[in-house]
Amino acid sequence: MRRKKLILRSYELTMQQTQAYIKANRQRFLDELLDLIRIPSISTHPEHDNDVRRAAEFLQESLKAAGADKVEICSTERHPIVYAEKIIDPKLPTVLVYGHYDVQPPDPIELWDSPPFEPTIKNGKIFARGACDDKGQLFMHIKAFEAMMQTKELPCNVKFVIEGEEEIGSENLPQFIKENTERLSADVVLISDTSMIANDMPSITVGLRGICYMQVEVTGPNRDLHSGTYGGGVMNPINALCEMIAKLKDDKNRITIPGFYDKVVELSAAERAALAESPFDLEAYKADLGIEEVAGEEGYTTLERISVRPTLDVNGIWGGYTGQGAKTVIASKAFAKISMRLVPNQNSEEISKLFTNYLTSLAPKGIKVHVKNYHGGEPVVTPTNSIAYKAAEMAMEQTFGRKPIAQRGGGSIPIVQLFKSIMGVNSILMGFGLDDDAIHSPNESFGLFNFYKGIETIPYFYKNFAELSERAKNL
Amino acid sequence: MRRKKLILRSYELTMQQTQAYIKANRQRFLDELLDLIRIPSISTHPEHDNDVRRAAEFLQESLKAAGADKVEICSTERHPIVYAEKIIDPKLPTVLVYGHYDVQPPDPIELWDSPPFEPTIKNGKIFARGACDDKGQLFMHIKAFEAMMQTKELPCNVKFVIEGEEEIGSENLPQFIKENTERLSADVVLISDTSMIANDMPSITVGLRGICYMQVEVTGPNRDLHSGTYGGGVMNPINALCEMIAKLKDDKNRITIPGFYDKVVELSAAERAALAESPFDLEAYKADLGIEEVAGEEGYTTLERISVRPTLDVNGIWGGYTGQGAKTVIASKAFAKISMRLVPNQNSEEISKLFTNYLTSLAPKGIKVHVKNYHGGEPVVTPTNSIAYKAAEMAMEQTFGRKPIAQRGGGSIPIVQLFKSIMGVNSILMGFGLDDDAIHSPNESFGLFNFYKGIETIPYFYKNFAELSERAKNL
Repeated sequence: MRRKKLILRSYELTMQQTQAYIKANRQRFLDELLDLIRIPSISTHPEHDNDVRRAAEFLQESLKAAGADKVEICSTERHPIVYAEKIIDPKLPTVLVYGHYDVQPPDPIELWDSPPFEPTIKNGKIFARGACDDKGQLFMHIKAFEAMMQTKELPCNVKFVIEGEEEIGSENLPQFIKENTERLSADVVLISDTSMIANDMPSITVGLRGICYMQVEVTGPNRDLHSGTYGGGVMNPINALCEMIAKLKDDKNRITIPGFYDKVVELSAAERAALAESPFDLEAYKADLGIEEVAGEEGYTTLERISVRPTLDVNGIWGGYTGQGAKTVIASKAFAKISMRLVPNQNSEEISKLFTNYLTSLAPKGIKVHVKNYHGGEPVVTPTNSIAYKAAEMAMEQTFGRKPIAQRGGGSIPIVQLFKSIMGVNSILMGFGLDDDAIHSPNESFGLFNFYKGIETIPYFYKNFAELSERAKNL
Repeated sequence: MRRKKLILRSYELTMQQTQAYIKANRQRFLDELLDLIRIPSISTHPEHDNDVRRAAEFLQESLKAAGADKVEICSTERHPIVYAEKIIDPKLPTVLVYGHYDVQPPDPIELWDSPPFEPTIKNGKIFARGACDDKGQLFMHIKAFEAMMQTKELPCNVKFVIEGEEEIGSENLPQFIKENTERLSADVVLISDTSMIANDMPSITVGLRGICYMQVEVTGPNRDLHSGTYGGGVMNPINALCEMIAKLKDDKNRITIPGFYDKVVELSAAERAALAESPFDLEAYKADLGIEEVAGEEGYTTLERISVRPTLDVNGIWGGYTGQGAKTVIASKAFAKISMRLVPNQNSEEISKLFTNYLTSLAPKGIKVHVKNYHGGEPVVTPTNSIAYKAAEMAMEQTFGRKPIAQRGGGSIPIVQLFKSIMGVNSILMGFGLDDDAIHSPNESFGLFNFYKGIETIPYFYKNFAELSERAKNL
């Protein structure tokens, strides 16, 4: 009765050995993370392809050393996926850990207080690109796994799928999942790529927005022109692009794309009331960002605007002369990167088409428009009545001494919806970062408190999940 | 009676020796111009300060070799001014030649078919930055002067004032003129820094627009933010900047800045009718620019829009992530360079204030605006009933075989108004370039026909001006 024995064992585990192991290896865990962070694995820049590869190899070694089996760097059309597993008993539940080892570009680099790929520890935080997103959060899982393995306290099966294309839209992951549904099969996907409310107020993300990321190119005259000789006689592509962008929202900050809101699920009064109960200090929020006023869609609170409402933001714009001094030119072309965050039940493909059609229709005469769809991801809401959610809730309560709040996040992790649609598996979004970790920004950071708290909490999740799954089976 | 003798001599001059000298030295003139063009004297970039200096030294040598006296490189707070003169008789009229040896930056450099500072001759044109604006046009004057000097056919006094800051607003020239009114005193300023209608349709520019060049910086949150976590909750500075720019014009393409048109002198019906007589082929214009439709202020023709109407153009815009791929960021700041072309009787200082006040008032809540006034220049209309204009008209007729058309240009040469206001002297804008020389753009060019035609025409201007001045005195 091997199974029975194992199950009993999982009940008996207190994770004390694991916690002791973590305590004894704190400095080494940190040193290893810093080594991982030093690799500038920027997935969007082809000149860093080799660095992305090196980061994958680093993880391969870490997983092997931790005790994983079948560790493999799986090639894709672009950046590889690292796979690993530890099956202690096929009859036990399986946790699939997802993370990503690629990072955003560090631009604007001149705003960093320390070099983005030379991690610097200051005020109890690691400052570096990827410190939080997602190297720091991902590495917690590898170290928690190592601790459970080395102390023989791992209570269930584990699989790791770690990609290198999250920051560029996870283009090759869907195909990989489809081709490996058997190998990846699991009872739950566990992801730490979100944030909590505060260090003394843990939370679990139960909803994420989807995304449509578009690039727009507008073309006027066939060459750059002198603004004196031609000014006033031709449509200036930059002015045109500004006008087109301005028309994408009305004076109530509602997005004007026809059909954009058609499928948006409005929150019930009860849901809105519940959301309003979430701790949120508007004055502290404004002070943190250095702004005098918040802004957004009329009729919604800031908390609603950043979590349950769709958005449209220009992420980048460029055209004409941007150097020092003056150049009196009318540019031939102007460009913008524009993304929309989507909420249930918007669909990224549908929205990208609506966007493209509408923006094209806004082009003034004399202007041609080309819209490119960079990547999309679907919005998701995860259940809070599942065993996995309960296991995560209990784990956080065990280490934080406080029950976490269920929270809907504004960001997008498109793969959550992928795991659901392709494999039928829900995800648990148990992140340990904070909103002010400045991910995607200069001076990204990750608190040492958060790094270690994550490593300590994760083993309890495994333990709780194994126990609750077994109990459910026996009911 | 030295004066009498000289005057008689000027009547006698046929400029035959001068023309023969020009013919004999065509290749050397071109070679020297190409050497001047090879110096990347980009005035706006401090890293090219030394190149700007080298260009000044090149001109110093050219003027000395041509036969000028008192050749001097005059320091200013930034780039030097080259002065030279040849006074053959203080009682004869004096022509002050103005030009500039600085050039625009070559950006976007990837659109050049040949390196911008390695002049390439193709299809009878010199392709290089500065080929036309203004090295090519300026050098015509030095070579015409050389030809007249070497053949002893110079019929009046000449002074040269050649600056290195025209492309950055001629900041130090006004002070120089004020401090040297005696040294610079002249009867007319002669400038070749404008274009003609076509090689078989010469024209003289009799009006120029003024300019206000502004840089706008908008600031939202104090740092770049993740567009998932914060999107929808704060005003995005790029969206805000686009909205503000869009509001600067109404749907009739009229500029909305309050008071902007208050002092604009409307053309009379007769003036409009005369302008409509100018040769202008709208279909050829559109075909040349590769646009399906022209655009501009409602109620005005294209020719009016580009010459006698004020404009507002964004010359550059930037903010957020502009690299390859996707970055989901809300930028802290966004920037634009915006210039307005002014017409009589708008005033650049007044307009810059109106712009600043209005743009600042357009800022949505949560956005701070900072507007910087880069440089300004006043609109000007020069008389067509003067001796100098007649001399220029005759000179062009002598070399082109066709009377030039009086034309109002859309560009700005702020110093024209400076010479008028400080010294009381009118300018003659006798340019030999063409609109499609792509000045300020990639693949700037200057026709060899135009270069040589300019050198041939200029001596006739001197001759006509000296003769007509003398006749006027004797009346």
